[in-house]
Amino acid sequence: MPLIQVDLDRQLWEEKGKAISGAIQRAQVEGLRIPAEDLFHVFRPREAGEIVFHPSFGGVERRSLIVIRVVFVHEHPVVKHKYAFYEAVAREFADLGIRSDDIMICVTENTYEDWYAGYVN
Amino acid sequence: MPLIQVDLDRQLWEEKGKAISGAIQRAQVEGLRIPAEDLFHVFRPREAGEIVFHPSFGGVERRSLIVIRVVFVHEHPVVKHKYAFYEAVAREFADLGIRSDDIMICVTENTYEDWYAGYVN
Amino acid sequence: MPLIQVDLDRQLWEEKGKAISGAIQRAQVEGLRIPAEDLFHVFRPREAGEIVFHPSFGGVERRSLIVIRVVFVHEHPVVKHKYAFYEAVAREFADLGIRSDDIMICVTENTYEDWYAGYVN
Repeated sequence: MPLIQVDLDRQLWEEKGKAISGAIQRAQVEGLRIPAEDLFHVFRPREAGEIVFHPSFGGVERRSLIVIRVVFVHEHPVVKHKYAFYEAVAREFADLGIRSDDIMICVTENTYEDWYAGYVN
Repeated sequence: MPLIQVDLDRQLWEEKGKAISGAIQRAQVEGLRIPAEDLFHVFRPREAGEIVFHPSFGGVERRSLIVIRVVFVHEHPVVKHKYAFYEAVAREFADLGIRSDDIMICVTENTYEDWYAGYVN
Repeated sequence: MPLIQVDLDRQLWEEKGKAISGAIQRAQVEGLRIPAEDLFHVFRPREAGEIVFHPSFGGVERRSLIVIRVVFVHEHPVVKHKYAFYEAVAREFADLGIRSDDIMICVTENTYEDWYAGYVN
């Protein structure tokens, strides 16, 4: 049960929100090996100025920023799965015209008993 | 000092927001054994389409979704307290007409020095 | 790459949002010893009633609440840096007329492989 929370420019949300959600879910299925039905996304469209970033920190060329917060259970082999997920997000977003430089993903992990979704694990 | 962050449909917020906040706080007092005054909630009403979920993943019947993110300090006996909290949220929400199938709770833990609230622990 | 997520009253955001972002970044540079360019902030202005708190829990006099969620990599000497960060936020905010009693900071930590920002660590 990964939980995805996305803050992104309102215009991007209005133009491509549904496609972005689909892209993230395909990336989760590919990278994190979850079922496609394991779908829990929250989108928070933001107005101009509400996402603050530096245009070139880390050596990339950042023009905008879509911030993806992910929480999932700590499992093995987690590093391999994480990198596969990031790569899949970048590839899927490229198909939508979103540059990898404009993506931030931040993961935190928890454990099975940290989730309730109408039932406990 | 648990921090509660809730994303929920705007209509639900407008109709029952105050009651939902009270219900969560009572569930925290009962399950997590905190004082009622230890109250830190953020509500983020969402428009149609901003909360994305599958209607039946996990074998429940999901019609809507209220997403409750909780951060609190890792303490013992934490598993027992967590499950008591989930159960209390589901029970309290039922009194408000919110089905347990439409609830997601996601907890992450940190430690005492991770908090500032006008003072440090 | 700390990620800063701030929920605050819309009026405060509109009057002082840019200055608040600058203040948090200076506090990060001072306390967490990051470069000024390591800048990733999300602001979520909130309407009346969406931030719920107790006016005196913990012995402070809370009139309003600005909630700062921070995620950064677990590093040493982390406790010292955290406290320095909190102190710097409180001092910087005082210069903007924001009382320390009205600040909540909540940190969670993760690790290097939990981040993507156009590249992996």
